[in-house]
Amino acid sequence: MRVYLSGEIHTDWRERIVAGAEGLGVEFSAPVTDHDASDDCGVAIMGSEAKKFWHDHKGAKLNAIRTRNAIEAADIVVVRFGEKYKQWNAAFDAGYAAALGTPLVVMHGAEHQHPLKEVDAAALAVTETPEQVVQILRYVLTGALPG
Amino acid sequence: MRVYLSGEIHTDWRERIVAGAEGLGVEFSAPVTDHDASDDCGVAIMGSEAKKFWHDHKGAKLNAIRTRNAIEAADIVVVRFGEKYKQWNAAFDAGYAAALGTPLVVMHGAEHQHPLKEVDAAALAVTETPEQVVQILRYVLTGALPG
Amino acid sequence: MRVYLSGEIHTDWRERIVAGAEGLGVEFSAPVTDHDASDDCGVAIMGSEAKKFWHDHKGAKLNAIRTRNAIEAADIVVVRFGEKYKQWNAAFDAGYAAALGTPLVVMHGAEHQHPLKEVDAAALAVTETPEQVVQILRYVLTGALPG
Amino acid sequence: MRVYLSGEIHTDWRERIVAGAEGLGVEFSAPVTDHDASDDCGVAIMGSEAKKFWHDHKGAKLNAIRTRNAIEAADIVVVRFGEKYKQWNAAFDAGYAAALGTPLVVMHGAEHQHPLKEVDAAALAVTETPEQVVQILRYVLTGALPG
Amino acid sequence: MRVYLSGEIHTDWRERIVAGAEGLGVEFSAPVTDHDASDDCGVAIMGSEAKKFWHDHKGAKLNAIRTRNAIEAADIVVVRFGEKYKQWNAAFDAGYAAALGTPLVVMHGAEHQHPLKEVDAAALAVTETPEQVVQILRYVLTGALPG
Amino acid sequence: MRVYLSGEIHTDWRERIVAGAEGLGVEFSAPVTDHDASDDCGVAIMGSEAKKFWHDHKGAKLNAIRTRNAIEAADIVVVRFGEKYKQWNAAFDAGYAAALGTPLVVMHGAEHQHPLKEVDAAALAVTETPEQVVQILRYVLTGALPG
Amino acid sequence: MRVYLSGEIHTDWRERIVAGAEGLGVEFSAPVTDHDASDDCGVAIMGSEAKKFWHDHKGAKLNAIRTRNAIEAADIVVVRFGEKYKQWNAAFDAGYAAALGTPLVVMHGAEHQHPLKEVDAAALAVTETPEQVVQILRYVLTGALPG
Amino acid sequence: MRVYLSGEIHTDWRERIVAGAEGLGVEFSAPVTDHDASDDCGVAIMGSEAKKFWHDHKGAKLNAIRTRNAIEAADIVVVRFGEKYKQWNAAFDAGYAAALGTPLVVMHGAEHQHPLKEVDAAALAVTETPEQVVQILRYVLTGALPG
Repeated sequence: MRVYLSGEIHTDWRERIVAGAEGLGVEFSAPVTDHDASDDCGVAIMGSEAKKFWHDHKGAKLNAIRTRNAIEAADIVVVRFGEKYKQWNAAFDAGYAAALGTPLVVMHGAEHQHPLKEVDAAALAVTETPEQVVQILRYVLTGALPG
Repeated sequence: MRVYLSGEIHTDWRERIVAGAEGLGVEFSAPVTDHDASDDCGVAIMGSEAKKFWHDHKGAKLNAIRTRNAIEAADIVVVRFGEKYKQWNAAFDAGYAAALGTPLVVMHGAEHQHPLKEVDAAALAVTETPEQVVQILRYVLTGALPG
Repeated sequence: MRVYLSGEIHTDWRERIVAGAEGLGVEFSAPVTDHDASDDCGVAIMGSEAKKFWHDHKGAKLNAIRTRNAIEAADIVVVRFGEKYKQWNAAFDAGYAAALGTPLVVMHGAEHQHPLKEVDAAALAVTETPEQVVQILRYVLTGALPG
Repeated sequence: MRVYLSGEIHTDWRERIVAGAEGLGVEFSAPVTDHDASDDCGVAIMGSEAKKFWHDHKGAKLNAIRTRNAIEAADIVVVRFGEKYKQWNAAFDAGYAAALGTPLVVMHGAEHQHPLKEVDAAALAVTETPEQVVQILRYVLTGALPG
Repeated sequence: MRVYLSGEIHTDWRERIVAGAEGLGVEFSAPVTDHDASDDCGVAIMGSEAKKFWHDHKGAKLNAIRTRNAIEAADIVVVRFGEKYKQWNAAFDAGYAAALGTPLVVMHGAEHQHPLKEVDAAALAVTETPEQVVQILRYVLTGALPG
Repeated sequence: MRVYLSGEIHTDWRERIVAGAEGLGVEFSAPVTDHDASDDCGVAIMGSEAKKFWHDHKGAKLNAIRTRNAIEAADIVVVRFGEKYKQWNAAFDAGYAAALGTPLVVMHGAEHQHPLKEVDAAALAVTETPEQVVQILRYVLTGALPG
Repeated sequence: MRVYLSGEIHTDWRERIVAGAEGLGVEFSAPVTDHDASDDCGVAIMGSEAKKFWHDHKGAKLNAIRTRNAIEAADIVVVRFGEKYKQWNAAFDAGYAAALGTPLVVMHGAEHQHPLKEVDAAALAVTETPEQVVQILRYVLTGALPG
Repeated sequence: MRVYLSGEIHTDWRERIVAGAEGLGVEFSAPVTDHDASDDCGVAIMGSEAKKFWHDHKGAKLNAIRTRNAIEAADIVVVRFGEKYKQWNAAFDAGYAAALGTPLVVMHGAEHQHPLKEVDAAALAVTETPEQVVQILRYVLTGALPG
């Protein structure tokens, strides 16, 4: 099973899911999580831009090669919203997965419940912790429940 | 031509586009923009919920009947990000339209350029004002440029 | 908006929805609800069968011409489960609509909540009465809530 | 070849098919067939619910991650209807597979012939026993007939 | 409802269906049934060919513009096999419609039952006369049975 | 590369292609070519039928499980028309492949050029011998031409 | 019938087709054929760019809103290659239409036969003059041949 | 990851990409790049043609078996435009990939910037050298930037 881990890149939630899912045979993918590389990849490879818009544009399109392919290949898309920042790319990925009909698992804190209601409504599971995502993957793959 | 106007519901940007595009033969659609109705529609029709999560869930799903159909029917999806709030549903709609391959026009102020770079990268036009969107619709339909 | 009314054919729920939605501009479709015609249509047109299986088979396929086209054309599929009978064709239609990604509204009494949980989980709205369905159609089309 | 075994979970029909198909190289999948785990998985992982509807809802959606992926990946979907219970999820799966155009094999006793006529009409084979399903798989894969 | 009438072009079966379905609001389409025009259209418009293969090739491709569009637009594809000739284009159209998932109605005499079994197996109705097709269209559209 | 070999089952053309393509890494599939098994498979497994139509129907549907899956999985569909018989299933398969957009290679003698013009017009290659098909497979896979 | 007229914008071929097809009920669409407007539309509406690449980029994307929608809505795509210029956008449109499975009619002079062979191979008709295209449209719609 | 390398066949750009991407686990595909074989393959296998148009037609269709399958299987399509020739097949492939939604990387010199603006507008990256393509592949697969 291929699982794409989209969204927040400032905490270790991906590592905790990957570690927790060891032995389940899940193939994880993710965006490039090195913030600087992700921001500058376009100009680093294809030449600098005077305007910030095009600097970002080149990078965002280059990253889209990776993320679109990964979302389209995924059996499950997990999207985590962190406590800070706009994170519109996370919501964009959730919408993209929803339109493809790919099962969506959302992770976020209680403080974001209301503004994420449309995203949650498109999800097959709404979680708060990486451990819950691991439990979901284990249940989906093996039928085993925690405890 | 059918145009879906997604996103921010606190200013008159939709009215300005609709007024400006008069005579072009565009059929506009939009989410329910009455904030209270949109929040409470689920429980108002299908019964109250003790938990806020399910209150919101019922409403968000009911709204999804309208928004999914409108996005899937649209020839162009315009998504506006305002100055305030999380607006994750706007980014979700943009991702949904992108996955369908529907031409996407984004509208936002310069202050949001960086966090919206992935959304902008998926768009065929990035604008700042309703008037620019009107000009785009006029050009796309008639070939006429402003001025 | 095209709405397909699938399921139970022994009560007047379709008439109540159609009457309630008057003036909303909804185009309703439904299976043939004349029970005898629906059962015997195949052999009436294409010749009798000695075995009940093929008698039913010819009819079910002929009805499928109508129902498949109607479901595929629908913007919303409403499926009602009544109090009696197996009603597997209703659940079949719900699954069909779900796979197409068509918004699904389910109607059933509280006594069927548990065995319909998988169907409800695929729905964007779960209702108990035709009046609620009318309220949903009115809200989706006009944004107006009851009361 | 991937075969999804949907439906009734109270008898050993899956085991008999899997055992009978040994050596054919078929990769079988199925829903979680532990009845309690299937019912309670949602609340066990994502927290309890006061209302039975949401208790069931969370579980049904979580199970849908597994079943949707399995049906969409399947080359053949086998759906068995047992003697008891509503089994609407089985009919839902059959409709889902039919809409995807996936070859459908139905299994049920003669007593259910009439109420299942729409489901049977969508199937490429209608059987009564697991042994017939094994014979079908063997024939489809090797061309060999029984006896 | 749009109905495409494919196949045999030597008898008046299309006229009988069109006349019989008067008042039902069906929009019929068909291939060019002028045999000479159909055979020579390619070279008549795009220049003659020394080799019969290319003469036929140009015509067949030109006819395909009409037939592909008509089949893809149809809600029902009716394919009639007459008593004579190879009629491989009729079977080709049936396969094309089957792959699109468009409801297929086949018409042929009893003498062709065995060689058409694969085509019949993909059909939702197998008929022998234009009158039966009219009865099917009437039933599908109005629920009325003959007699 | 997966190649489906459809059509005539009375000569050794499949064996000649498979033998000629040895070493190219092609994975071939085909319908069941044992004529009696193919005709009787339905009743042999699912019970006899008094009417020839249903005898054939059960068999044709069962065979469709194999052929639909094989055509949908194929990268190239080769369809051979022999000198005798109606072979409508071959033309049906060609139409099915054409609708899926799968590259089609047709094989037939010169005597069938005219009645097969619509099928040939949908093909990317029209051949007369198994050896030509092998040369096509070798060229497509390796770029090597004969001689 | 909707026909998109793609390609060369320096001669009156579109006008000749539209005039010739009068009375056939064809709805024609085309890119913006005002060369300056087409080149500058992006910056005229969304602001100037210092780099020619981004000047062109903004315009090309804006034009894509019109052309993608028109190609996706078309029943036939006609692509004309003129005598001069690179005309890569014409070939791009042809490839786009081919991937969608939309019937493609190509128009070009004999001097371009060899470099356009891949495009011609994807077409259902290859013509040299607007009059031939008109004859094709008339034949496809009415069955009438010229002369 | 599967990458299709389309376009110019007169320089060693493919070899440089393949060599540069060693160790990344990319599976490359390409059209037949032997110019004479590519031109003559159709007649070499399926018999000579008097007219150059059909000579080319047979070859172009045969090559299309390879190229269509490769483009449809690709995760990324790279299209290079060289300094000379019309290269309409390259632009055709770009349009084909764009319509499929496959990430597109374009490579060309600055002198072709203006006539390729529509193609560039459909791309997720626009490059000038094979080394940049290698850097893109490395970044997309590993997140590593050059230098």
